[in-house]
Amino acid sequence: MTSDRRRGVIPVLDALAADVAIIATPATRCYLTGFTGDLGSASTRDVALVARDRTILLTYPIHTGWATAEAIAGVEIRSHRDWLASGAESIAELGWRTVAIDDTAIPHASAVELRNLLPDTVTLVDVGSRLTALRAAKDEGELAAMRRSALLTDQVLVEAASWIDEGMTERSIAHRINETFYRLGADDLAFTVIVASGPNAAKPHHRSTDRVLIASDPVVIDIGCRLDRYCSDLTRTLSIGPPTDRFVTLYNATLASRDAAVALIQPGRPAKEVAKAANDVARELGLGDLLMHGLGHGVGLQIHEAPAIRETSEDVLEVGNVFSVEPGLYDPAWGGVRTEDVVVVTETGCEVLTTAPKLDLGAVN
Amino acid sequence: MTSDRRRGVIPVLDALAADVAIIATPATRCYLTGFTGDLGSASTRDVALVARDRTILLTYPIHTGWATAEAIAGVEIRSHRDWLASGAESIAELGWRTVAIDDTAIPHASAVELRNLLPDTVTLVDVGSRLTALRAAKDEGELAAMRRSALLTDQVLVEAASWIDEGMTERSIAHRINETFYRLGADDLAFTVIVASGPNAAKPHHRSTDRVLIASDPVVIDIGCRLDRYCSDLTRTLSIGPPTDRFVTLYNATLASRDAAVALIQPGRPAKEVAKAANDVARELGLGDLLMHGLGHGVGLQIHEAPAIRETSEDVLEVGNVFSVEPGLYDPAWGGVRTEDVVVVTETGCEVLTTAPKLDLGAVN
Repeated sequence: MTSDRRRGVIPVLDALAADVAIIATPATRCYLTGFTGDLGSASTRDVALVARDRTILLTYPIHTGWATAEAIAGVEIRSHRDWLASGAESIAELGWRTVAIDDTAIPHASAVELRNLLPDTVTLVDVGSRLTALRAAKDEGELAAMRRSALLTDQVLVEAASWIDEGMTERSIAHRINETFYRLGADDLAFTVIVASGPNAAKPHHRSTDRVLIASDPVVIDIGCRLDRYCSDLTRTLSIGPPTDRFVTLYNATLASRDAAVALIQPGRPAKEVAKAANDVARELGLGDLLMHGLGHGVGLQIHEAPAIRETSEDVLEVGNVFSVEPGLYDPAWGGVRTEDVVVVTETGCEVLTTAPKLDLGAVN
Repeated sequence: MTSDRRRGVIPVLDALAADVAIIATPATRCYLTGFTGDLGSASTRDVALVARDRTILLTYPIHTGWATAEAIAGVEIRSHRDWLASGAESIAELGWRTVAIDDTAIPHASAVELRNLLPDTVTLVDVGSRLTALRAAKDEGELAAMRRSALLTDQVLVEAASWIDEGMTERSIAHRINETFYRLGADDLAFTVIVASGPNAAKPHHRSTDRVLIASDPVVIDIGCRLDRYCSDLTRTLSIGPPTDRFVTLYNATLASRDAAVALIQPGRPAKEVAKAANDVARELGLGDLLMHGLGHGVGLQIHEAPAIRETSEDVLEVGNVFSVEPGLYDPAWGGVRTEDVVVVTETGCEVLTTAPKLDLGAVN
């Protein structure tokens, strides 16, 4: 696997005329070496040096045992107290002259320090966004993990929908959802659960509060977990008591947007066309002012990764892309509705990984 | 609060002859603005511009409602689609000439882009580690949150110790601990629970596996949560069945190390002396080869922050510092033992925030 995956890095090395890439994005390091480490974070102390003929994993000493247990065959593990010094030593030892650095993940201070540690004969070049596509097309093993992760999340949503009720607080619902995730076997949460009720539902990334749910509230539930390293992401919006007319209007609009997007998904389609189709549904209904965010984002080892599904995206869909389709409509004076599924692009269209029912809201359907 | 806390940034601006600091470390941004955002991560899309007379919070549009609800009075919120462009505009508008950047948190690519967006008349200087001390001394409000966070974690440990038993897997124990955290009211986990049994206990950052616990196993349980934003951190090591001689030796050594460290903690004491005292206990017992990591780390809005408690640390303890004391001894051929408490430095010594009993291991005491 490692050599297959390393093959994806070679065109980047070629484009930059580089001998090696220093990879500091934890998810990409995990993908290329098998070592989980601080997968969920953006920082790094364990980096991969990926060349055409070898992969070296520089691990902090207390991670060496863990890395040895997890690393893919063929990955060479080197223990370090300071990855910059250790990286510079490896570069000198192996005679690498042009080194590509993961400049969107490496802190500025570390890039400056690395430059100072290397002789002038070594040239540093920036990888930029060239590696973001590396993990965008999932293989069958990855898809199997993502299906399990999505299924577990569906189950949590279904359970939660059965007991969420008037009188509960956002926070108490969030706690019970978290408890349910772990009872059903999630390894971690992919992100902090969002329970946004009433006017709070107008805030897409609301942090749960002690607000008590009352009749006629919309309640946005946005949840996801990690299972076997892979993330899931799912949003459903409930109504406390019979849905109001406003709820029905916005809810149906998100369903229609979602369906319009899903119908367009196929390999070769520019992502921006999918986003535009969904947003056009809202605009045609006179709800364009209630759009606040892009339609979706890639999901995988990271909860947000390539491809970007928004009207300004330059990504083109390919088989194996996994991403969210999550139209949302937000009215600060009232609340909001978001409906989110995760899909995988197939040869002929897409498969929807999330199967939690669009909740039975009577008048909505 | 914001103006008080901003006062801590002024000496840094003075030292760098800077007009403003761009703060990208999420915990420091949260501390100075009140906005939680992506507190648990190392990346940033919401940054603070802190000058002598004002604090501006640049938030991504979907966070604006959330930021408005949380921000401390006096913080000006500006919505942006691109914080670099927005930051450059604010710098131009306010006539700032020397700008300090949070270079240990800002990615290299962003620092380069910001440089390109600014006219030559603006000078960029690096903050480096000058802001790390800002959050190291906790105030009473912070300590109250940390006591609650520690207490909840103590309760989880005590519950877990009552049901952890032979025949369970590491993973099933981790799941049930997670479930317990949320049932008792944690807002989030501070880090992935560590359940490391038998030989896995020799790996300080072990990721739980399907290994089944057997008699005579040491089991390291390292857990922590977030409550009201603040982290807790606690480790106890259990023995499955009667502790072996090896267990008793290592367990008692970590207790003695912990006690030696706690006895030395007081304001003005170099952190390295505390670490050395603990490690010397192990060395005098002939166990020096089993040391694998520093004695402890600051805990607060981040699970790892200042001060560093290790023999190479240059930090000097001050009143309000909160940090872990976590001596560990690791024998790859057998397993390991770690005992971790979190303490706060007081005028006269320290207060131990974690109160979970050192478990009743019979022969160990």
